[in-house]
Parts: sequence; structure tokens; C-alpha cells
Amino acid sequence: MIIVLRRDATEKQLKHIVDKVKKLGLKPMISKGIERTIIGVIGEEDILRVQPLEVFPGVEKVMPVLAPYKLVSREFKSDKTIVSVGGVKIGGKKIAVIAGPCSVENFDSLLKIAKQAKKGGAAMLRGGAFKPRTSPYAFQGLGEEGLKYLHQAGKEAGLPIVTELMDVRDIDSVEKYADMIQIGARNMQNFNLLKEVGLSKKPVLLKRGMMSTIKEWLMSAEYILVNGNFNVVLCERGIRTFEEATRFTMDVSAIPVVKRLSHLPIIADPSHATGKWGLVGPVAKAAVACGCDGLMVEVHTNPEEALSDGSQSLMPSNFVKMMQEVKKVAKAVGRDV
Amino acid sequence: MIIVLRRDATEKQLKHIVDKVKKLGLKPMISKGIERTIIGVIGEEDILRVQPLEVFPGVEKVMPVLAPYKLVSREFKSDKTIVSVGGVKIGGKKIAVIAGPCSVENFDSLLKIAKQAKKGGAAMLRGGAFKPRTSPYAFQGLGEEGLKYLHQAGKEAGLPIVTELMDVRDIDSVEKYADMIQIGARNMQNFNLLKEVGLSKKPVLLKRGMMSTIKEWLMSAEYILVNGNFNVVLCERGIRTFEEATRFTMDVSAIPVVKRLSHLPIIADPSHATGKWGLVGPVAKAAVACGCDGLMVEVHTNPEEALSDGSQSLMPSNFVKMMQEVKKVAKAVGRDV
Amino acid sequence: MIIVLRRDATEKQLKHIVDKVKKLGLKPMISKGIERTIIGVIGEEDILRVQPLEVFPGVEKVMPVLAPYKLVSREFKSDKTIVSVGGVKIGGKKIAVIAGPCSVENFDSLLKIAKQAKKGGAAMLRGGAFKPRTSPYAFQGLGEEGLKYLHQAGKEAGLPIVTELMDVRDIDSVEKYADMIQIGARNMQNFNLLKEVGLSKKPVLLKRGMMSTIKEWLMSAEYILVNGNFNVVLCERGIRTFEEATRFTMDVSAIPVVKRLSHLPIIADPSHATGKWGLVGPVAKAAVACGCDGLMVEVHTNPEEALSDGSQSLMPSNFVKMMQEVKKVAKAVGRDV
Amino acid sequence: MIIVLRRDATEKQLKHIVDKVKKLGLKPMISKGIERTIIGVIGEEDILRVQPLEVFPGVEKVMPVLAPYKLVSREFKSDKTIVSVGGVKIGGKKIAVIAGPCSVENFDSLLKIAKQAKKGGAAMLRGGAFKPRTSPYAFQGLGEEGLKYLHQAGKEAGLPIVTELMDVRDIDSVEKYADMIQIGARNMQNFNLLKEVGLSKKPVLLKRGMMSTIKEWLMSAEYILVNGNFNVVLCERGIRTFEEATRFTMDVSAIPVVKRLSHLPIIADPSHATGKWGLVGPVAKAAVACGCDGLMVEVHTNPEEALSDGSQSLMPSNFVKMMQEVKKVAKAVGRDV
Repeated sequence: MIIVLRRDATEKQLKHIVDKVKKLGLKPMISKGIERTIIGVIGEEDILRVQPLEVFPGVEKVMPVLAPYKLVSREFKSDKTIVSVGGVKIGGKKIAVIAGPCSVENFDSLLKIAKQAKKGGAAMLRGGAFKPRTSPYAFQGLGEEGLKYLHQAGKEAGLPIVTELMDVRDIDSVEKYADMIQIGARNMQNFNLLKEVGLSKKPVLLKRGMMSTIKEWLMSAEYILVNGNFNVVLCERGIRTFEEATRFTMDVSAIPVVKRLSHLPIIADPSHATGKWGLVGPVAKAAVACGCDGLMVEVHTNPEEALSDGSQSLMPSNFVKMMQEVKKVAKAVGRDV
Repeated sequence: MIIVLRRDATEKQLKHIVDKVKKLGLKPMISKGIERTIIGVIGEEDILRVQPLEVFPGVEKVMPVLAPYKLVSREFKSDKTIVSVGGVKIGGKKIAVIAGPCSVENFDSLLKIAKQAKKGGAAMLRGGAFKPRTSPYAFQGLGEEGLKYLHQAGKEAGLPIVTELMDVRDIDSVEKYADMIQIGARNMQNFNLLKEVGLSKKPVLLKRGMMSTIKEWLMSAEYILVNGNFNVVLCERGIRTFEEATRFTMDVSAIPVVKRLSHLPIIADPSHATGKWGLVGPVAKAAVACGCDGLMVEVHTNPEEALSDGSQSLMPSNFVKMMQEVKKVAKAVGRDV
Repeated sequence: MIIVLRRDATEKQLKHIVDKVKKLGLKPMISKGIERTIIGVIGEEDILRVQPLEVFPGVEKVMPVLAPYKLVSREFKSDKTIVSVGGVKIGGKKIAVIAGPCSVENFDSLLKIAKQAKKGGAAMLRGGAFKPRTSPYAFQGLGEEGLKYLHQAGKEAGLPIVTELMDVRDIDSVEKYADMIQIGARNMQNFNLLKEVGLSKKPVLLKRGMMSTIKEWLMSAEYILVNGNFNVVLCERGIRTFEEATRFTMDVSAIPVVKRLSHLPIIADPSHATGKWGLVGPVAKAAVACGCDGLMVEVHTNPEEALSDGSQSLMPSNFVKMMQEVKKVAKAVGRDV
Repeated sequence: MIIVLRRDATEKQLKHIVDKVKKLGLKPMISKGIERTIIGVIGEEDILRVQPLEVFPGVEKVMPVLAPYKLVSREFKSDKTIVSVGGVKIGGKKIAVIAGPCSVENFDSLLKIAKQAKKGGAAMLRGGAFKPRTSPYAFQGLGEEGLKYLHQAGKEAGLPIVTELMDVRDIDSVEKYADMIQIGARNMQNFNLLKEVGLSKKPVLLKRGMMSTIKEWLMSAEYILVNGNFNVVLCERGIRTFEEATRFTMDVSAIPVVKRLSHLPIIADPSHATGKWGLVGPVAKAAVACGCDGLMVEVHTNPEEALSDGSQSLMPSNFVKMMQEVKKVAKAVGRDV
């Protein structure tokens, strides 16, 4: 931690801060420059991080030296984590593609989609039983019934399933039916939900909040790891920007950035990032070229009748086409699908 | 709803869409222009809103005509709502100032702050018992013990209290001890939490998500009203932008915008918006000049020892100074404090 | 400047950096902490600022301690600058209101607006002769003819004029006819234009770029001062964010932030910030309450026929109403209009 | 153009608008719905676009149906434009890689870089002689001397050159020495500069403004085409967002979006987008996978001594490595390098 003093800071103010630092068991190193005095603090940065040093008289700014996360960092664990979901490995050489409808609507269409996804090369099935919808008037999901359908369709198609958990009260049912628990973008900072899945034995898919920095995202993952669950996969799904041509802006460079900072696998969701099915293919290829460990793609047999997100869902035939192209790009960067 | 067709849309595609619209019980009005055919749809727009019309072949874009919210709108209720919290009215001529520490830390300091806030002109006491913290290593709040302290301090100081609810499982305790339930920025789209407070008898303070448009914010309020609770106060607390000089960017124009669109009262939180106590006063005055119905301000007797948000907390003496200035501005715009 | 080394930095890498620092005539102070070694550099920070230290092997990050601007800073000049424009003082107790049409359209309507603006309490006349328009098909301004109209209308109404300079080749005509030269938001980083107005004797109104940080804005002002022109007034006109309810988002807290960092006066433009005439009044009052030294407002006698920005222009009657309200707020914060 | 009336719009207001529309030679189509009356206007949308219809009494909002650009659109020209720069084709099957230093610093190092870039597979040489620098104290470029060096180095290495034009007064020298004229991000809306290069015979590389939507970017290209120069290549170089881990955020989906909307070629600049040389390779591959027609990459033989942007420059050895990887990805998407 570096504490920069104001130009007009007094000796008394300097002493007050130095005393505080020492009282916390840390060692202050004072450098008096021409324009500013700075204090470098040696010792556990975490002890200082929770202190409101900016309010001490004479302080201009406080600059942390270390990242605030520990367990998710490469420094804590230098080799890449591979998360296993019902036999599917995420984080290894093979790129895992998760496909399925936005919402579970009924069993028959779900099974049909699941089988076609499997045939197209998907490794896992996705589908929402609990749906976070901006409007209270929109379809809110089938709830536990949807979980059962998912479980059954996954079983019949031979695909492990991932589904979103929105409410701490639903964790038992989601754990019962799902192979992986998804935390959605809008719940990335629902800290009690993070604690609960941290205590779960099931692997977790943690989507990035649409307006969260990479640092905040990794801190949210830290909540899960610190509670005991190290099987976390991150998912970049686009951030909110001023650009309106796409629903969100896929932050493709977040993929290599996260890979440097963390040992956790990272996948990409081009469906939510773009909001338009015609852009899903190009952006999926970009994410794979950039080094992602998997993809999450919305597929629907009849987008015109989808109860949610129809406009960003691929028809199975387009999913197959996308998979063929993605495979070539994966191979070009030394990966398989 | 307006459906704009692609330049190359065929008659068959047009018919397919028109048939869909009619099947839904709505009336299509076709205008064939020089460059585009557009279809205006007459009838309940909500019926179409949930249809993924963008995926119909030949469709270029779909433009809604109406706002997606109903109960929160001025069209539903043209006169302003006044929310009463333990005798304090929010939304009337008087500007309600809510003051208190970021977190409840212990009873004695809380009571001291409460009494000084009251003396300085605050109408309500704030304080967090459950704290949404970016880091799992930061102080997470005192929980139910904090609620009891708040209740007691509010009683002794003669101030109704507002505190944040983060978890659906805590609603009973929060309802028991608090006069008003706060939904924080990170939970603005925690829809199950919104449903729960919609079923509560206690008034709700709904903070704007840092990443949320005004439209989404009003849709979140709609979740509360549609579940039966019309006592909702909105709170602008700054949005995330590229500017780094402040913690967030206070969207001051959101105040007059919301007042046009909705009958709900709106207050402003200059402490979280700016993140720096030295900016709280000027931004508080701006919010009042712009028409807000109240302020929410962090006050701490010893910011150097605060367990959270010390750098944005006002000392009681600065709070008193701010209140004197705010009163003058309030008077200038025909309001009282 | 603080240089933070990577955890795995070698002694050789440390020596390489230390040698570089010494070679530049600066003094390195090494602090070896538990997790990182950091190097504090004492001496002229500017010497290091232009060095790409991040690329030196073993460097994790480089953190500047000082602001990159000098002449515009409060540290360089602690008392507030007052800029005089044809007798009108900007930066003193009196708030200067600049009013007029977006574009100069013809002499008669301009004169009419000028006279009504004067009557309503405006201190200066604005109007664009050269218009930066997003579309090549939109009205591009009357050019030098417009400058002449402005000059004449200002003279007849008794108001100094300000108008935008878009092109270095037009500086002579703008200098000839205008009392103050405006640099628009889209040219805030047109550095050659900044250099030219830096060499001018006329005062400059420097609008903030719609996506520029306060730091970059002050650096652009520095370009003008370093070329010899200290008569610079800053103008906050809204930044681009994700919110769509307003054209831009007025960053009202930029006003007190700039006042702390710089001695230059700052005014606000609620017309461009909001894009809607109905929001101009509330946001103007907010800016004044927050401490701005002036306002820039679009006024048009017939917005329905305006060739640009009609939807954000006030009718003269609404301008008068706004002025009455602004005066009250100004008085409440110890200012006049 | 669709005009949506307010719920309380009167018949008189409707008539006033309809009269205006008719007076402009357009045909209004009125649809009276349950909640709103809407007016669809048939005829040249451009005529209406410049009218401030939002200010007409009774109007709630105005929604354009067509894109505001014409010449750059796919509707105007459905087949892809191929721009030829000194024999190098941009927009065809082959991906054109432009490499070179940020600034031209001296002839010897430039020539060395040029030869190594050529050897690594670059098709063109880049380098700045006029540098737009945020700080007036930073290196501003060698000016015309730099242009001569570029010209000579390009000639000796066998590479056409591209360099930035910042000032309308420098167009003759830039035209004389360069094969392609670059308009930088900060000048994307310097409309007079756009007009000048529109009148030039040299092809233009138009970078996206960091603050500009895709629509605004295409409108800036329209300025060039409408003045007669159809040889325009677009360059995505990252937009400004709240994320701080990278210098800007590469908007990779802008590539497929632009390819749908426009016939112009589009390339990507991963150096400026990321600001970190270690991220240039992954993001370059992502851009190619997504369909870009070229890359622009900063290469420097000694980044530690670079006078600008050292931290984002590749060493020639890393450039060669990147090219090998990019070639594989290009092949995977049916392209060559």
C-alpha cells in the first residue's frame, strides 16, 4: 500500500498516519520527494485495505499495490484449474460447448433441442427454470418443474446440465437436479447467493455482471472459493457500453486478461453478449481464437415461438454450422471441441 | 409496436407476420413506403412485447411505442405519491434527509450519530446491518444484532429507521425492526427480493443499480407495486461511467426525468455517488435544486475508524454545515427541509 | 512515480530499472516488502512519465503520484482565475449566462433572440457559424457570414459573443468577429486547434469531450495555457453513458472536482447535456447549486423551425422563467446572476 | 419516420404536425391506437430527419426507420469494396497486416523495424509523424521530416505506408509522402478534416472514435464518400468503457456488424485497443476469427526506448510469433495473410 500525502501535509499529520500504520503491526517506509511525501507500507496489505486511510488529514490518495483477491489468483495456484461437470472437463485442451434454450418451456421441445445440440457437438445442456426477467409481466420460468425436465432431457440426451440459481431458497432443488449451478450476471454481486454456492458440492458457472470490472468479478469468485468450493468456471457475457448495435459489448480481451490473473477456466456467451443470432457465430469464433475454454450458446428449434430471448437463439441447423466453423478455429489455436 | 421490414422482405414474409399479429388478436396497419414497409400494430402492446418478432424472416427491427411499465407511470396515477415512514412524509413539500453510518458498528457510536443527525435536521436514521461488500474479507455487518441497535437508536433519537435487506431469508427480522426496507443497488434486479418486499407492508427504498437505465429501474419498482406494495421511494445513487475522479457519476438529470415518468418520490444519495465526503455537500445541493424529494447521507462521528465507507462519511459538524446550505437551496426551489 | 515489481522479478531486473532511473538523474528508493518490491522515484516525475517503464522486464505496474498537468492546477496558482470577455467577468461572484441559438440561421431571427436573451438576463450571446454535424447532409452553418451576423447582433443587443472554431484555417475570422472562441466537445483533443487558440489573445471556452475524463480535459486546457493563453473557461456539457433517457449525462460532480483541481472557471451547458428543453431548467439549477460559474443555454424564438438542436432550445419565455429560478438558487449559494 | 403522439395530444396538434409533413411533400399515415396515435411518414426520410419534430406540441417521440447514411451502406452497394494501397488490396481474401512503430523516431530504427516487419509478413508500414498526444509535454512527432523517413523506409523495405493526418494544413505533405492517409480516433468527428480527405485521391484509413457509436462512425465515413473518395477502410481500435484492465475495450462484434451494414473493408488495431503488448496476439486472433480484413499492429525494435506507446509495442520476434498464429486462424476462417 502506498500512501501519498498532500503537498501541504504537516509533520504532525505524517506522524499521525505513521503511528496508525505501526499500531496495525506494519512497517512504514517514508520517502520525502520534491513535491510529495509518500509512505510505502510493508506487511500484510489486507490489514490496511479495510482502513479508510483517505480520510486521515494530509492524505491525498492511497494506492494499493496488490490485487485484492487471493484464492482465485495465479499467485495462489499457478497451474490451471480444470473443472469437471458430470464427466465433462472445462479448462483443458478441449473446448466445452454448452447449448440449449434460454428458458425451459416444455419437456418435448427441450428434449428435441437437447438431442440436436448433442448431435451438433455440444458437451452440456443449458436451460433456465428460474428466469430473471426485467419485466414482472414476462415469463418467469417453470420453476422446479423446469428443473425436472432439464434433468430428464439431459439424461436422455447424455448431457450434463447447467441451470441458473436465483434465490438462496432454491439451492436444494437446483443442487438435486443440476450438474452445475449458474450464477447469472444480475446476481454476480448477490453475496449471500455466492456464499451458498460456495458451500455447495456442485461446480459453479459465474457470469460476469454487465457492469462489473474484471477485478470485481474475480472478487465474486473469491467469495465462492473462500467458502470451500474451488470448482468455479467464469463466463464473459458482454458488458454494458454506449454502443447500441449489440445488446451488450463482448469484452473479448477479458479472456486473456483473466487467464493471466487467475487459474480458473473462462468461457464466453456470445448469445447474450450480442443479442442477435446472426452475430453469435463470428463472436463465438473470436472468443475461441482469444483463448476461451468453452462457449455457452442459446439454441431453440423454433425461435419464433420462444418465450424468451428468441432473437438471439440459433436454429439447430445454424448451431451445427457454427460448430463446424468453431472447430476449425479451435484447431488453429491448438484446441479441440 | 412498429415492425420495420427489410428492404428485401417478400410478400410471403409480410403475410406471415401479419397472420401472427392477427392471431394474437391485434390489428396490423401496413404502410408501404418507398424504401421500407412498416407495420403498425394496434392493440395491447404487451401482448407483442413478449414475442420475438425480430426473428421473423423479413423483419429488420421492432420498435415499441409505449413504456413497458404501467403501475409506476404518471399515466396510471397522475398525482404524486407521498410515502409515509413512521410519520415522516417523503414526496411532499418537505425534503426528507436520511442520515447515519454506512454500517452499524456498535450501539454507542450509533446512538451518538443518531442524536447528532437528529440535531442537525435529519428526519430518518440509516445504517447497514447486512452489508453487501465486494470483498469476502471485508466487514459483513452485525446482522440481526445490528437491526436491534438500529431500532433502539432510532427510538431513542426519535427517528424512523431504514436499513438494507440483502437476503429473502432475512425479511422477517428486517420487517420487525425497520420502518423502511432498503433494496441496494446491487440487488435492484434481484427479482425474488423485489417480489418479497412487494408483499411486505413496510415502505421500500429502491436504489438504482449502478448499471441500470431509468427504464429498468422503473421496471424493478413495477415488480414491487404489482405485488401490492405502492409505498416505494426511488433513490438515485450514481451510475458507473468511465470517469474515475468520483466513485460513480451522479445522474442528476435522472431526478427530473423520473418525476415526469413516474408518480413515485425520488431521493438522492450523494455519499455513494461521489465516494468523497468533500463532494457530498455540493452534489446534495445540486440534487435538491433539481427537484429531489429527499437525501440520504452517510454520517460518522469518527470516519478514521469507520468499518466501511469512511472516506465518504461526513463528520457531524460537516453534516450540520451541509444541512444549513441545503436548507437555503431547498427554499430557493420552494421546498423545506 | 512508484514502480511495482512482479513477485518473480530478479535482482538483475531490479538493477536494470534502478540503473535507468539513475541515468535519468532521478533517485530510486527501494522498499522490499513481503510480496513485492517497490521502487519510489524521487525527482521530476515528468522525466519518468514519458518512459515506457511498463515494458521493462520484471515490472508489474507503474503508478504516477502527481497529476500530469501543471499550469491549470491549483498548485500552480491557488487563487481563482477570472476571465474577462468584453467586460463580462466569468469566475467571480456573478454567474454569467450565455444564451443564443444553436446555429446562426439569419440575421433577423438572431437579433430577435439576442435582444430577448439580453432582456431575460443573459450576459453573453452564443451562436454557431461553423457547425460540427454528425451528418454531411445536415445544415453546416453559414460560415463567415454567420460570424458577421453574430458580431452585429451582439453589438446591437449589447452582448459579447462566443462562437465555435472548428478549423485552424478559420481562426483569423473567428478572432476578428468573436469576443470568445469556443472549442467544441468533438475538438477537445484536436491538439493543433488547441495550440492555435493558445497563441490567440482571445479568451477560450473549452468544452469537455463527451467521453473525456476530467484529467484529459485539464490536459487539453494545459495545451492552451502552455502556449500563452491563460484566459480559459471550462464547460461541462454532459458525458456519454449507457443511459438513453437524456442525450448525454450531465456530470454535475465534475464542477466541484474541477474547482478543487484547477483555478480555471467552469460553466455548464444543460442544453447539450440533456438534449430536451424540459430538462434544461432543473439541470441548470443543479449546476448552479453545485458551484458553476456560468451557464450556456440554447434559446430560439421558434424551435419548430430551428435548423439544428430545436428539441433542446428554450423559447424566450421559458428562458425568462428559467432565469428567475436560477437567480433564486444562485442567491441561495451566495452568488448573483 | 414514425411520430408517436402523447396520450393527451389534441386533434389540433395532430393537424399541425400533419400539415407540416404535407408541406414538406411527404405523406402522413395516421394510425389511431388504443393508447397512442402514431403517424407513419412515407417519402424521403432525410427531409424529416433535419426537422426538430420533437418540439411540436403533442409529440412524445420520433423514431427514424432508416439508417442516416447512404453511400457507405450495403443497400447502396451490395458487393464489398476492395481498397488498393500501393498494390496492397484491403477487403479481399487476403488479410492485410500493417505494422510499424507508434511514432517515427529516427530513420535508422524505422528502417530496421520496416525490414523486420516485412520479413514477418507485414503488407504495409505504419508510423506517426504528427502525433496527437494527450499531454503538451509529450513527444509531438518529427513532422514533415518524419514523413520523408517513412517514405524512404517504405520504399527500401518494399512496403506502402500509412500515416496520420491531424491538421488540414498538412494534407499536401501527407499526400505527397504517404500511400494512405490515416484519420485518428480523436479526429473521427473533425468534419473539416474528413471533407479534405474526401477530396483527396489517396485512400483513407478511418479509425473509430473511442467515444463513437458504429452509426456515428459510418456517418463520418459518409463525409469522405460524399466528397468523392470511395477508398475508405475502417479501423476498430477499442472503445472507452468502465473496464480498467485494458486501455480501451476492443469491440470485436463491431466487425461483423459493420460488414452487414457497409461495403467498406474493416481492420482492427489490437495495440491501441488493449494497450498491453501481451494482449495484442490473442486480440489480433479474435479480430481475424471475427472476420476483419486486416490488422494494424505496433512494432518496435526497442520498446524500452520508444518515445510513445512502448508498452503496447511488440518486439519484432513477438510480431513474427503473432503472425504465425494469425495465419493459422486466418486459414481456419477461409482467409490468407
